Parts: sequence; structure tokens; C-alpha cells
Amino acid sequence: MSLVGVAAKRIVTCDPARITKDNPLGTIEDGVILYDQHSFSWVGPRASAGANVPIIDHGDRVITPGLVDAHTHAAWVGSRHDEYVMRMAGASYLDIAAAGGGIVASHNAVMNASEEEIEQTLAARLKRMASLGVTTCEVKSGYGLEPEGERKQLRAIARVREERDLPHVVPTFLALHALPKSAKASRDHYVLRAATTLLQEFASAKLCEFVDAYVDKNAFTVDEARLVCESAKKLGLGVRLHVGQFADVGGAELAAEVGARSVDHLENVSDKGIAALAKAGVSAVLLPTASFTLGQEPPPVERLRAAGIPMVVASDANPGTAPTESLPLAMALAVRLYGLTPAETILGATRLAAASLGLWGSVPHPRGAIAPGARADFVVWDLPHENAIVQPWGSPKTLLVLRDGVCIGRS
Amino acid sequence: MSLVGVAAKRIVTCDPARITKDNPLGTIEDGVILYDQHSFSWVGPRASAGANVPIIDHGDRVITPGLVDAHTHAAWVGSRHDEYVMRMAGASYLDIAAAGGGIVASHNAVMNASEEEIEQTLAARLKRMASLGVTTCEVKSGYGLEPEGERKQLRAIARVREERDLPHVVPTFLALHALPKSAKASRDHYVLRAATTLLQEFASAKLCEFVDAYVDKNAFTVDEARLVCESAKKLGLGVRLHVGQFADVGGAELAAEVGARSVDHLENVSDKGIAALAKAGVSAVLLPTASFTLGQEPPPVERLRAAGIPMVVASDANPGTAPTESLPLAMALAVRLYGLTPAETILGATRLAAASLGLWGSVPHPRGAIAPGARADFVVWDLPHENAIVQPWGSPKTLLVLRDGVCIGRS
Ligand SMILES: [Zn+2]
Ligand SMILES: [Zn+2]
Repeated sequence: MSLVGVAAKRIVTCDPARITKDNPLGTIEDGVILYDQHSFSWVGPRASAGANVPIIDHGDRVITPGLVDAHTHAAWVGSRHDEYVMRMAGASYLDIAAAGGGIVASHNAVMNASEEEIEQTLAARLKRMASLGVTTCEVKSGYGLEPEGERKQLRAIARVREERDLPHVVPTFLALHALPKSAKASRDHYVLRAATTLLQEFASAKLCEFVDAYVDKNAFTVDEARLVCESAKKLGLGVRLHVGQFADVGGAELAAEVGARSVDHLENVSDKGIAALAKAGVSAVLLPTASFTLGQEPPPVERLRAAGIPMVVASDANPGTAPTESLPLAMALAVRLYGLTPAETILGATRLAAASLGLWGSVPHPRGAIAPGARADFVVWDLPHENAIVQPWGSPKTLLVLRDGVCIGRS
Repeated sequence: MSLVGVAAKRIVTCDPARITKDNPLGTIEDGVILYDQHSFSWVGPRASAGANVPIIDHGDRVITPGLVDAHTHAAWVGSRHDEYVMRMAGASYLDIAAAGGGIVASHNAVMNASEEEIEQTLAARLKRMASLGVTTCEVKSGYGLEPEGERKQLRAIARVREERDLPHVVPTFLALHALPKSAKASRDHYVLRAATTLLQEFASAKLCEFVDAYVDKNAFTVDEARLVCESAKKLGLGVRLHVGQFADVGGAELAAEVGARSVDHLENVSDKGIAALAKAGVSAVLLPTASFTLGQEPPPVERLRAAGIPMVVASDANPGTAPTESLPLAMALAVRLYGLTPAETILGATRLAAASLGLWGSVPHPRGAIAPGARADFVVWDLPHENAIVQPWGSPKTLLVLRDGVCIGRS
């Protein structure tokens, strides 16, 4: 646990205490970071650094906080490449479902896999995500659909969460994702069971920190999702919601009402919904790889920005609508397709993403920024400037990726 | 040089002898490949393979020919991230040039770098490209602009070309890229020198196999490019041309007239131009990462397809308009943005790309397909099906990458 240091031409801290209008990411030029195998102890210009700590100099490179991927379905198994090709050829959601694709395909794959298989697949995936710069990753269940399947996915996620050489995992119980065939005749019972028995079981087994529901047309209603959200709050769990991917059915207003941490997707949202989100302090998690794959128009970034809603950028990694493992690619798409600035994008994939996961703010050792006391999660990029991170590299550009002061990835 | 074998659930040969309407990539299910450290000796179903060769079984994975990137400016040094951010914010070509960006920025970086620096930067880049699946890579000069700079870039490329553990390199002298400041007053002399003295020098030093010119508005005219093309043909060099990226100034007709191997970009081309290309058998090299970065409409893929013009997909890797190193990302964009089918895209990044580089057809050991006698260039993908290759992974999905039967990359 002894102190070590790294130096680089640019230290992008994302620390609110250092951010100014002219320095939107709180960047220190020619800076030094001191840290141990837990957290940062000192950050500042090289000229002010003490001389008694060994420092590795990374020269003309840039260092940022570790990336935080706040929305993934990374615990999937199997491949939905045939569906992807159908989609690219213009097939609709219904065509794909008729051909056996969609969530049902991943559901079948999860039901046929063992907990160990899901665990190993997820661990390997998180290792690749780490090499791309990710040090914290939210992972949802949601392909189990039935109690035993959800339990299996969440247990696999919990096992991977114990690994110290992978990104820090934040588990989410995606309680309402799709109605399984078996529940078509008993929809109310399905929803109620998710909101009561299942939620209580998973909360007391500490299998999830968040609860999520898919609020959209052809998905679940506001009233159905409200049951789950209120139950989650009583159990002390956070709420995140899939909202407005295809239609605005009032999910933003629900998120504001129940004090959700995040609304995710948000391609379709009214001014009233945006005002409610802003007032309630809910973050918007933008998922450009999904809207790109689906050929959709971007969410209303200018209106979100004007309302002062924190904008998070995440990968949505899933085998259907965002068959990717790359948060940096999502960041490149956010800049190119959504018009986010590089600074907005980098904040949205670090501190703001961490905040949406309850990992920044009044917590003992926050994540998402390079600041004294925060967890020593950072990336040394093999790039000379933070603006180069959002280019469409399509491959890892990391030199070293550290979580809790320990290297977990490199390209 | 002893024979070894690999087996996999799907062997995507891209071999014209195996391609049918129902099997557009000549895929062998449950297939075996036998090869030595030079070329393939046998390809076929596992049931027909002899029993006396050691075979490594890659199980439920897919094997394709090594990827061939037929258009790159990969011998760049430095970074143009500030220009990228300006571009994303809507800055024009002229704004960027006024701020010191554009080709001039890369020219300055090349002039300030040693031949060894360019060589090392290129070799490291090609190593990363190999990990993405690339086994052959065209590399252009063009940032030297002045004779000594072009010579330096081409010599660096030639040195990298000797490396056996990197992709096979095809060097191109980009004779007319931009007019350097020093030549503003003597444009005719600049063009003439490129077409005569320089071309002769580089051809006799075997520093290039192809010659290229940028035929567009604000670039070079058809008449200027013709001088270079005709001189190249006399010297036995192939011709490839940057054509129609911003405007149709007749580059396609010139390419047909001089028997160019490829016209690259082609966002703007007339029906007359397309007919001329088809008649002359010129390949179209599509560069989706560039048009995506520039926010342009796609080239006329349906008209090219209807005319029977071979469509190649390449990365255009360059520090300005396509700041990427990933041919697989370009392939994903070709499917998503250009409407190419996965099969068209895979052919366009393997055999058709090789053909556009003169590496397929009546040559001793062709590249670009898995067929007896062809060079043993192939990729074992950590994916179950060729259709998964074109998903927007944003990271390497290779298990093993072999050139001439030797492993040169893995993810
Ligand atoms: Zn999602
Ligand atoms: Zn080019």
C-alpha cells in the first residue's frame, strides 16, 4: 500500500474543484498523481509534487479518470448476428421477433447456459472492456425473464463482481424487460411478482444495487414500472429506467416522480418530461450506439443541455441493438452524431456516469474523477490529448488502465 | 515448412470457385484448412481431410481470409485532434486550414520526424491493425509533399515492408496530394517534377508499386493527374486515384482512360463516369469512415452495384478525415451507412481488396481468399459467424491472425 506516482503532460482530472469555463475538464498540464492501491492521495502540477515518491513519467501522454460505463447488458451469452443482418437490411422489430430474434433469443441462450458459463463470458467481456479504458461497469440482468433465469444472471454478475482485476461492477436487476411467453396470460402477476417477491429476494441477497424497467410502447406501462420503482425505494435500492427509446409514454415524468438516478435512451421525451427530470435532478444516460444501430434520430441533446440535465454516455452493450463492447466507440458516436463536445462526452463517461451510479458525491471513496480521496481509477492513454480519445479509433488506445491503483488492462 | 491444419465450424473462403448464389462467400461448414509457412495447400470439409496432419480445432468459430486494407495513409506521425474537434463543431475545410490544420499539419509533422520515427510509428500502427485482422495493408506517402519528405516516407514504408511479423505492405507514391506553399508560384513545375523525376526515382528504387493522385476541386485537375498516370504506366506501376470526394471533376473518366486499378472515395460521380469505370474494369474503393467523419452522404452504392463495379471497403486511416486504425469499423459503417450486405463487405475487405492491389488473379501466390496455392493469410475470429464480424464492436474480435502461415496478431 505504499505511495507511487505517475506524471504526464496532461492530467484530465474531471474534478469539479478544478473545472472552470476555460478548463472544462479540470486539466493539469505537466501534472503528477500520487496514489496507493486504493485511492488518490495527491494531484497537482509537477513543480509542486514532493520529491520522495517514485514517479513513472508517461511523457507527452494524457491521463483521465477510468471510464465508467453506466448502462450495459454485458451479462449476455450467445450471438444475435442473424438478427443484426436482418436489421441492417431493414427488418422491423416484429419481423425479427417472428424469426426468433430479439430479447427472446438472449433469454433462450441464458436459460441454456450455466451460471459458470455466464460468469466466464461476462468476465472475459469485462476484461476486454477494461483494455478499452473502462474501470467501472454497470451490468443489468434482464435476459432471465423468469425468476430462475434472473437469479442465475444476477448470481453470475455477483461472482464477477468479486474479481479485483476487472472493472468495478454495479449490478442492476432489470425487473421488467419483456414479458416471457409463459406470463402472457398473467401479466399483472408477472409484474407484481417482480416488484415484490423477486425484488425482496434479490435485495436481501445483495444481488443488485439498482432496479430498472423498460418503459415504452410494446414494453411496460408507467403504472407497471411504478410498482417496481416504489418497491425498490422502500428496499433502499436505486432506480434507473429505460425511457422513450421508441415512444414517449411518460417514463420521464415517472422517473422524476420516484427520484430515479437515471433515465436511459430518451430519444423521445416531451418538454414537460425534460422539465420534470431537471427539477428532480435525474441524469440522462445517452446510448448512441443503439440509436445508430437502429437508424434513429438522436435524443434532444440541446434541450437536455439547456435544462441543465447531466448527460451520461454509455455503451448499452447488448447482443441485439448495440452489439458492441466499446464505450470509447459510443463516445465517438456521441460527438459525431449527438453533437456533444469532447469535454461533455468525457465528463459523461467518467464523473457524471459515476454520479448516476451513486459513486460520486457524499460517499467515502468516490469514483469518476482524479481527486484526493477518490478511488485510484485512471487510464494512461497512448494519445497526446483528451480530444483524441473521442476519435473513431475502433480499437483500444490505452497504455495502462488502473482500478483501485492496480493495473487491470492495457492495449 | 511442414504442413499444419486448422478446423472450424465455418470456413469463409471467399474463393470464386466455391461461391454460389446461395453461398455468397464460399463458406465451408465444419471445414479444415491445411497450410505451411507460405501458402494454403488444401481446403475442404473435415470429412474429406486426410488424417496425417496435426489439426488445431477452433470449434464453433469462423475463419476468414486475412483482411486487406486497400487505402490507408498509415505512415502519418503526430495527431490532429484539435482539427477533429473543430470539424465536429462544424468548422469547414478552410477554417481548419486557416488554423494550421489539414494536410499541412501532417506535412509539418513528417518534415520534423526522422525516417526511423516514421518507420517505428508505422510499424506499431500496423501491429495494432494486425490485431484487428489485417494481413495486407496499402500505405501511401503524401505527407512529404516535397521530394525529400516523400522520399523519407517511402523509405520508412519500405523498411517496414521487410518485417515478416506485420501485415504485407503495398506502397503507393501519392504523387499529387496537396500543393505545398513553396510550389504555389510554380504549380506546373511541381506537377511535372512529380510525374517525371520523382516517379522515375521512386520506381527504380522500388519504393512504390502504385501511384496515386487526388483529383477533386481544390486539389488537382484531370489534366494534371493524367501526366502522373501516364508516366506511371510507362514505368510499369499501377494507378489508384482519389476521385469525387467533394466534387465530380471527371476523375472516374480519367481512371477508366488510363486503366487505373481503383478509384477511391467516389461520393460524387456521374452515370457516365460509372459506365466508364465498369467498362474499364476499375474497382471502387469505398471509405465510409471518411464520409462519416465529414458528415457526407454515401457514394452511389446502388448504381455501382447495378453497374457490376467491384466494391472494396477500406479504412482510409489518416489523422484528419478518418482518424482510425480499424478496417473492421469501416466494414461496420459500410453495412450500416452504405447498405452493403455483410457478404459484399467481407468480399470487399478481402479478395476484392486484394484484386484492387494486383494481388489476386494471375499472380503466383495470390492473397485475399482461402484457396489452394494462395498465401496462408487468415483470421480465426472469436465469433461464431461471419455476420458478427460487421457488428460495431469497436475492439479487436480476433483470436489469431496469420500472414504467410505465421501468427502476426491476436486480440
Ligand atoms: Zn438497455
Ligand atoms: Zn485517402
